[in-house]
Amino acid sequence: MTKNSPKAVAWQGEYDGALVLLDQTELPSTCKFLECRDVPTVWEAIKQLRVRGAPAIGIAAAYGVSVALRNAVAEKWTLERLKREAKQAIDHLATSRPTAVNLFWALQRMEGVLEHAVQAETEVEAAAMRMLNEAKAIHQEDIVMCHAIGRFGASLLKDGGVLTHCNTGGLATSEYGTALSAIFTAHDQGKKVEVFVDETRPLLQGARLTAWELMQHGVPATLITDSMAAQVMREGKVQAVIIGADRITARGDAANKIGSYGLAIVAKYHNVPFYVAAPSSTFDLKLVSGADIPIEQRASEEITEPFGKRIAPVGVRTYNPAFDVVPAELITALITEKGIIQPVNQAGVTAMLAS
Amino acid sequence: MTKNSPKAVAWQGEYDGALVLLDQTELPSTCKFLECRDVPTVWEAIKQLRVRGAPAIGIAAAYGVSVALRNAVAEKWTLERLKREAKQAIDHLATSRPTAVNLFWALQRMEGVLEHAVQAETEVEAAAMRMLNEAKAIHQEDIVMCHAIGRFGASLLKDGGVLTHCNTGGLATSEYGTALSAIFTAHDQGKKVEVFVDETRPLLQGARLTAWELMQHGVPATLITDSMAAQVMREGKVQAVIIGADRITARGDAANKIGSYGLAIVAKYHNVPFYVAAPSSTFDLKLVSGADIPIEQRASEEITEPFGKRIAPVGVRTYNPAFDVVPAELITALITEKGIIQPVNQAGVTAMLAS
Repeated sequence: MTKNSPKAVAWQGEYDGALVLLDQTELPSTCKFLECRDVPTVWEAIKQLRVRGAPAIGIAAAYGVSVALRNAVAEKWTLERLKREAKQAIDHLATSRPTAVNLFWALQRMEGVLEHAVQAETEVEAAAMRMLNEAKAIHQEDIVMCHAIGRFGASLLKDGGVLTHCNTGGLATSEYGTALSAIFTAHDQGKKVEVFVDETRPLLQGARLTAWELMQHGVPATLITDSMAAQVMREGKVQAVIIGADRITARGDAANKIGSYGLAIVAKYHNVPFYVAAPSSTFDLKLVSGADIPIEQRASEEITEPFGKRIAPVGVRTYNPAFDVVPAELITALITEKGIIQPVNQAGVTAMLAS
Repeated sequence: MTKNSPKAVAWQGEYDGALVLLDQTELPSTCKFLECRDVPTVWEAIKQLRVRGAPAIGIAAAYGVSVALRNAVAEKWTLERLKREAKQAIDHLATSRPTAVNLFWALQRMEGVLEHAVQAETEVEAAAMRMLNEAKAIHQEDIVMCHAIGRFGASLLKDGGVLTHCNTGGLATSEYGTALSAIFTAHDQGKKVEVFVDETRPLLQGARLTAWELMQHGVPATLITDSMAAQVMREGKVQAVIIGADRITARGDAANKIGSYGLAIVAKYHNVPFYVAAPSSTFDLKLVSGADIPIEQRASEEITEPFGKRIAPVGVRTYNPAFDVVPAELITALITEKGIIQPVNQAGVTAMLAS
């Protein structure tokens, strides 16, 4: 994803505008945009992974609060009504997905500004504008953070193969991404990186999105099934694994797309460094152990009927956790926009986030 | 798969009959049978995985030689012609798939009988009958072997979860299977086993075939993606992993469906026993190291167009090894029809196979 690529998340117009999402469930075959003019549409888009990736979910949810307020001026709302409608949107959007903490972090920021706006302003228009500006600030900060993560991450990569899982590029964020930002930045610096892309069952974000973003950026990419990662490492083709995260605890345990945990074990077995790249908004310091991170369970059909075709016997039982947790001891380093945390432990996390 | 289930491989009629295969590419939605009346049809069925699983491929290939001879009497062939046609079929069928050694083992047995038959017999009919009888013997021995493997394997299982990869049941063999035979036998003995079934990308033999066979047999089965195996083990749901093999070397390195190697690493990390079940015909004592086993590379479309729908960008590069090798040091025990090899090393393999 480059500056000229279609944007995963964008706001169109002023405070009475709309949230425009690139519908990622249709990629890579179709570039379809979804204009969200009410909160249920935003909620459904997050739930159904039309917008996905921890940072992008946070940005979309923040704009989602502004979507709730777009008729405030036209309908001559009071400040009390604006507050009530915004609060209702915040509470509802928080129920869309449980694992990525950036969602709650962004909504909390919006709620903080909401309190301040209805105190400080006398006009509904000015309050709505404050809310939209906060969402835009979250969006802009994410662009800056992604590039900073990219620079720190690229410093850990040399020429050679890099393996990644799920999608952590511009589609998951606002521009360069997190783990993919490290790869894009290394590529931009002239390093000869080539990427092994796990397809990432069940929803195939690697095959559909990551392979597409890398090809758009001109980075050599080889698509594999998740089950091939160990073999690719055994063949010595991988200098490092780099993935994103949806929530990281105070001791550095990182929840990420299902399959990340097994990948970390396999990397350790082959002495391949395992990096997790994520902005500081991904850290949830209220939690110490990864065992306390709520893991989203998703529908059976994601496994039994991928892309509308049934592949498993009718009535078969499934288990479909969308995430797993990589314990800190399997992570070589955490890459944030503030710097690199290595070794990964509570002292390192605390020091870096306070910096 | 039970005695009453549709047979993966069967011979219909006498020496002028036909090989009947259950087309496994259509399962579980359709039970379609394929009558093979010429060698190219047999070759294509093996290549395209209409018949699959190391033992079943061996049986199908043996019958495939008889398919080549079905017109010998009607067309009044000489014994020389019968020998030439049989030899040609053997050489051609040996090129269908490179990794499973049972294919070559079965064809070598047929070639040995061929030499003997054309020496000993004066009638083409009698020679053709000897060939068919040898194929039937290979088939019958497989049934007996599978049940013996099942009894040895079941002795290693207690109540609880068992994880398996790919398909090693009656569809891959002649009746109860290899790794699945251990599970079926434990279930028949009244043990409360429940099975976590890896879907097994790219060709989904776990989702399509193993889940189906377990449900037919009444064994509780839970389908997961390959990337969920580590998480299921972390949750303590698995007492053992048990898989089959396509070729096992003298030191006990076992080639099996891609993903087996990573699964073995993950099992080791969780101290979960990792068992490989296979008949003695799967051992290739000419090879010591697993690095010498030829690994079949398959078409890119298996990854990019699963389920008949394109999921990856056009032009993306892929890597698609169909197998990987689990080194002996990651295998807790090898289960054969002759007994259990534990620990797994060259002395153990040699002693068991000589017994």
